[in-house]
Amino acid sequence: MKSWQGIIHYPLGERGLKPRRSGITMVIDKGLGMRELKDLLEVAGNYLDFLKLGFGTPALYSEEYLKAKIDLCRKYDVKIYPGGTFMEVALLQGRYEAFLTRIKELGFNTIEISDGTITLDHKIRQYCIKRAAGEGLTVLTELGKKDAKVNPDISDLLKQADHDLAAGAWKVIMEARESGKGIGIYDMNGEILEEKLEDFIMGIGDLTSIIWEAPLKNQQVEMITRFGSDVNLGNIQPNELMSLEALRTGLRGDTLRLVLRQQEAAIVGK
Amino acid sequence: MKSWQGIIHYPLGERGLKPRRSGITMVIDKGLGMRELKDLLEVAGNYLDFLKLGFGTPALYSEEYLKAKIDLCRKYDVKIYPGGTFMEVALLQGRYEAFLTRIKELGFNTIEISDGTITLDHKIRQYCIKRAAGEGLTVLTELGKKDAKVNPDISDLLKQADHDLAAGAWKVIMEARESGKGIGIYDMNGEILEEKLEDFIMGIGDLTSIIWEAPLKNQQVEMITRFGSDVNLGNIQPNELMSLEALRTGLRGDTLRLVLRQQEAAIVGK
Amino acid sequence: MKSWQGIIHYPLGERGLKPRRSGITMVIDKGLGMRELKDLLEVAGNYLDFLKLGFGTPALYSEEYLKAKIDLCRKYDVKIYPGGTFMEVALLQGRYEAFLTRIKELGFNTIEISDGTITLDHKIRQYCIKRAAGEGLTVLTELGKKDAKVNPDISDLLKQADHDLAAGAWKVIMEARESGKGIGIYDMNGEILEEKLEDFIMGIGDLTSIIWEAPLKNQQVEMITRFGSDVNLGNIQPNELMSLEALRTGLRGDTLRLVLRQQEAAIVGK
Repeated sequence: MKSWQGIIHYPLGERGLKPRRSGITMVIDKGLGMRELKDLLEVAGNYLDFLKLGFGTPALYSEEYLKAKIDLCRKYDVKIYPGGTFMEVALLQGRYEAFLTRIKELGFNTIEISDGTITLDHKIRQYCIKRAAGEGLTVLTELGKKDAKVNPDISDLLKQADHDLAAGAWKVIMEARESGKGIGIYDMNGEILEEKLEDFIMGIGDLTSIIWEAPLKNQQVEMITRFGSDVNLGNIQPNELMSLEALRTGLRGDTLRLVLRQQEAAIVGK
Repeated sequence: MKSWQGIIHYPLGERGLKPRRSGITMVIDKGLGMRELKDLLEVAGNYLDFLKLGFGTPALYSEEYLKAKIDLCRKYDVKIYPGGTFMEVALLQGRYEAFLTRIKELGFNTIEISDGTITLDHKIRQYCIKRAAGEGLTVLTELGKKDAKVNPDISDLLKQADHDLAAGAWKVIMEARESGKGIGIYDMNGEILEEKLEDFIMGIGDLTSIIWEAPLKNQQVEMITRFGSDVNLGNIQPNELMSLEALRTGLRGDTLRLVLRQQEAAIVGK
Repeated sequence: MKSWQGIIHYPLGERGLKPRRSGITMVIDKGLGMRELKDLLEVAGNYLDFLKLGFGTPALYSEEYLKAKIDLCRKYDVKIYPGGTFMEVALLQGRYEAFLTRIKELGFNTIEISDGTITLDHKIRQYCIKRAAGEGLTVLTELGKKDAKVNPDISDLLKQADHDLAAGAWKVIMEARESGKGIGIYDMNGEILEEKLEDFIMGIGDLTSIIWEAPLKNQQVEMITRFGSDVNLGNIQPNELMSLEALRTGLRGDTLRLVLRQQEAAIVGK
């Protein structure tokens, strides 16, 4: 039972239950042990949709340990998947088929397909998505490059998003790395590049098809302010998951403020 | 037994034992699980006076889990309380009485009263403090606004501190948020605004009545350097609690240096 | 068994096994509890060579708890030692002999000798190293000062490194503090001071005798890019240990990129 039911209601409203189609939170796991993962799931499993094992860290666990992590996530209905870079390594080494097989053997139910570091031909990308979706995996794809010097056109990203979704991707992730700085829609200080974001929004059909990587608090606040509590957010640090849920529900100053503004606006008849 | 007793003494002296009136440390808990909390309390329970469940996170736990956290803290004589924003939400929703009742049912023994986000009439603030103190709760109040654009006068903050203490607040917290930047006595880089701090110090009767939020290491070092080991500090991250205790006792370079300077000064007869 | 053996190989090659002479990782422990430490060792014990109990934190544990941490590390063949500042306090209080005795009683097998905060006469430094080595302890020494205003000459640091190694130090640590900013070879933003690093490299005989403190990700990437996967790195945060191992093995974008560049260079016949 919720601890404050009947006493306080969430200023920005109740959140939907899992499995969600929007309001999704993806956390990046950089090497959580079983005790930390249990803590995270017990405390905040209801607020967690996807756990990404960052970078190629899946290869650094023993098989036994990795399976235990995957099993635990599945028990809490949290989808767990290897970071896109790991898939890129498999592709680079000509082992995509073996990679898919191994993912399923280990118990992963989700895959991320990206070309953040490698160069990926359009047709191969399409093939990878279709192939993974055909295996029954939930497919997430990622838009953008990890190198701050490479700066793809928004129009190219929009085209790619459309193609990915058409090929079977469930959602498309907007790259921001772990740092949230100098990549995609964020400048070197992690502030939003207004024009880029506007262009992207204008071009995208369904906003709920995008998961925005937003590792920094100011980014999370901005996204919730613009798009509401149920914006999809990713690359959240494990120890920030509850803080983000407080932001989403209006239980933190930065978003509680939104409610106050609405009330004031209502009073003056705006 | 202490692990180095009889071999090394703390350069800045022994610290007082709990319950303390000064030298207080308040840690911000953004969603610790039971295992993490046990670790924290076992390792550093003696150095921890208050645990604040940050923002409105208390509402995000199940009743069972929240009670378990509260009970564990009480076992270690750590006072635990919901963040001020949560109390502001209750007030905003006209549920202050129900909030007080629920706090006590759950086992909290401390409350924070603030107006970091909402606007709070002086009389209501006084009422809230007296009401909570009357229920036997330890009352902490907070000075200042969470919005960096709002910049209260030091003289107003001083007046409020006096009123809060007179109404029954045990200590008054100087707001700095989790980031420690651009709020209260800190500039956008987290450096101390000298003039503001001086003005505040000049006006305050009893320095031990203030808990300074000091989330950044440079702020902790500055405060210990100015006011000594037993300055009250808050918004410490859980994984920084032992580092702070090392600073307080002179067991870290930044404050060990203070002892060396005193010795040099003694030698040259200053 | 490794979880992806036979499917994916590490882009930058396999890593050597412990005990290693190069490719060493030293993590800074600022107060880990037993559960967190177990998590760290179970997940990444193979990737961890040294655990430093930062600053004077060893003095802040109970004897029982400290011994339990030491025993656990030894079980995983992780060398554990008190931070250099703690040794400096012992020296300052004229208790170096008692300090050595206590270290051994508690089960530490490694010591760090430094003068980051105190002033240490050359002969005493030599004595301390020889004395500790004579007791069978693995000796690490540290070069540099913790005060950003003090800026030792590279030529002096090089001389000291030579003397330390000659006296029995196993490795020499290049100071960067926990922040990695404004100290040693890093500027105030944590970027490498090219000229300083070059001068140091030119003067040092055996690069594997140095452990570079590199707490920031960009520093880790730079060091691996310059010196290869098996560069010795220190002051890694516990929750960054797996990320660093991903960097070392080419399983993260920043270093996977190195492999791609080599391949491109091979194609164009450079």
